[in-house]
Amino acid sequence: MEPSTPFQTDSLVIVGPGLLGTSVALGLRERGFYGRITGVGRRAETLAQARATGAYDTLTDDLPAAIGQASMVLIAVPLSGFRAVFEQIALHGRPGLIVTDVGSTKASVIADARAHLSDLTRVIGAHPMAGSETSGPAGARADLFAGRPCVLTIAPTDAPDAVSAVESLWLTLGMRLLRMSAEQHDEQVAVVSHMPHLASVMLMMVAEKLGGLGVASSGFRDTTRLASSNPPMRADIMDANRASIRKALASFRVACDEMDALLADADADQIAGVLERVRSAREAWLASTQKETHA
Amino acid sequence: MEPSTPFQTDSLVIVGPGLLGTSVALGLRERGFYGRITGVGRRAETLAQARATGAYDTLTDDLPAAIGQASMVLIAVPLSGFRAVFEQIALHGRPGLIVTDVGSTKASVIADARAHLSDLTRVIGAHPMAGSETSGPAGARADLFAGRPCVLTIAPTDAPDAVSAVESLWLTLGMRLLRMSAEQHDEQVAVVSHMPHLASVMLMMVAEKLGGLGVASSGFRDTTRLASSNPPMRADIMDANRASIRKALASFRVACDEMDALLADADADQIAGVLERVRSAREAWLASTQKETHA
Repeated sequence: MEPSTPFQTDSLVIVGPGLLGTSVALGLRERGFYGRITGVGRRAETLAQARATGAYDTLTDDLPAAIGQASMVLIAVPLSGFRAVFEQIALHGRPGLIVTDVGSTKASVIADARAHLSDLTRVIGAHPMAGSETSGPAGARADLFAGRPCVLTIAPTDAPDAVSAVESLWLTLGMRLLRMSAEQHDEQVAVVSHMPHLASVMLMMVAEKLGGLGVASSGFRDTTRLASSNPPMRADIMDANRASIRKALASFRVACDEMDALLADADADQIAGVLERVRSAREAWLASTQKETHA
Repeated sequence: MEPSTPFQTDSLVIVGPGLLGTSVALGLRERGFYGRITGVGRRAETLAQARATGAYDTLTDDLPAAIGQASMVLIAVPLSGFRAVFEQIALHGRPGLIVTDVGSTKASVIADARAHLSDLTRVIGAHPMAGSETSGPAGARADLFAGRPCVLTIAPTDAPDAVSAVESLWLTLGMRLLRMSAEQHDEQVAVVSHMPHLASVMLMMVAEKLGGLGVASSGFRDTTRLASSNPPMRADIMDANRASIRKALASFRVACDEMDALLADADADQIAGVLERVRSAREAWLASTQKETHA
């Protein structure tokens, strides 16, 4: 479902022109965005790579100046960098400025915003559920977000024009929008994103300890893919979402106990019954995502 | 490393013309195998699908007759079906018959062979580490095995001509051969194949229990891919390799404890340090497989 009119704003400032930020810029250009896009980054190499994509009008390391002329700011830095951006928004943001982000956790983003801004009604949190184990603007793609879910954390008191603008941004990039509270979001991504990352890391740890990498093949490669994700980015996520991840991990340990009991006591038919039930649940989920993507 | 002369034998009988068995047949045909290939299966649908691939000279459900005219038998049935095949080999196999297999565990295969055959020196166990979450001959591919590892469990007393023939078979299909004992094999695949399958299943179980599938994306899809594997086949593997899988699971539970301690006590930098170390280990493993594949 794309909006009837593609997203437009006078001056979009993308703070953090990395994989996600630059994919937003490329995606908007491809869909006819004609406003100004400014990328703000600290590292010269990142700025040069972002410039090479041709998606930005300007790339700069001057965050205060960029924020001072923005109609919308998209925050696409690691979670540990959000506070510094909100601080600059408080100092230099123009009246009416709309703020959204790509942060992988949402309660921490709201807490960081609250620490610096008195009015949060124009800060509309977003988590576009797309990514890659690569990082940096060189891996950016105009279609990175197409068909993927995007969670928006919208409070009843939020400004309607800010909500519309942020919804239009992500719809224009082809995402399907889901609204939920920051707490709900953080619990759910702990289960389907952060816990799978931990499982990947732990599978790698076990292989290091017990051996077996010499006979590892595609199943091991795929289940450990997330263990190659950017460590500081993942550490920020784990830091920001500790309680929900520990809750998911506790449930995962219960599942370990159940599996061990099956291996100790169940016969092959009983084991197959459990595996069949879980496979059906996965196939039903896959079918539902296919349907949504093609709807 | 391919053998100088591609594998040849007069009459290869593939018991179980499914994904793996038919991929062997297709791969051999593509590499100029000119002997007779007979596929033996029980289900008419499987036989029809296998016939449609064009890789077999004959497809039949008559196992005794097929074994009676074989120079080599490749057993590619689920682990729970091995005993019945060894029983027929004992009754109908000609002198000099060579036997190999694709079984995912190896100690159980040797035990099943020993239950029916007095001479195991021409039974050369193999585990070609390739597969897919699909099953059945329709998913077979001539290049399924290319570049992948194949474990051979060769005893010092095994017949040299049988060892050479089986090595030649898997080398012709483009595999890189690894020799180890059945026990070593079973411990290593428990770590890099069976434990990842369990982790996939458990991630799905946690998502069913706690919710979150609505925001699940590519990371979840990839880490749970193995949970869609064929349940009876996986149950057979778990049944045949209980002790080694439980050992891997015990190590995995220790890793869960370590992760929980990190989430409880460590700061983001300490967490990043652990993730960085694990990522490096994975990248080193990936680099080593690339090197072997292209060597």
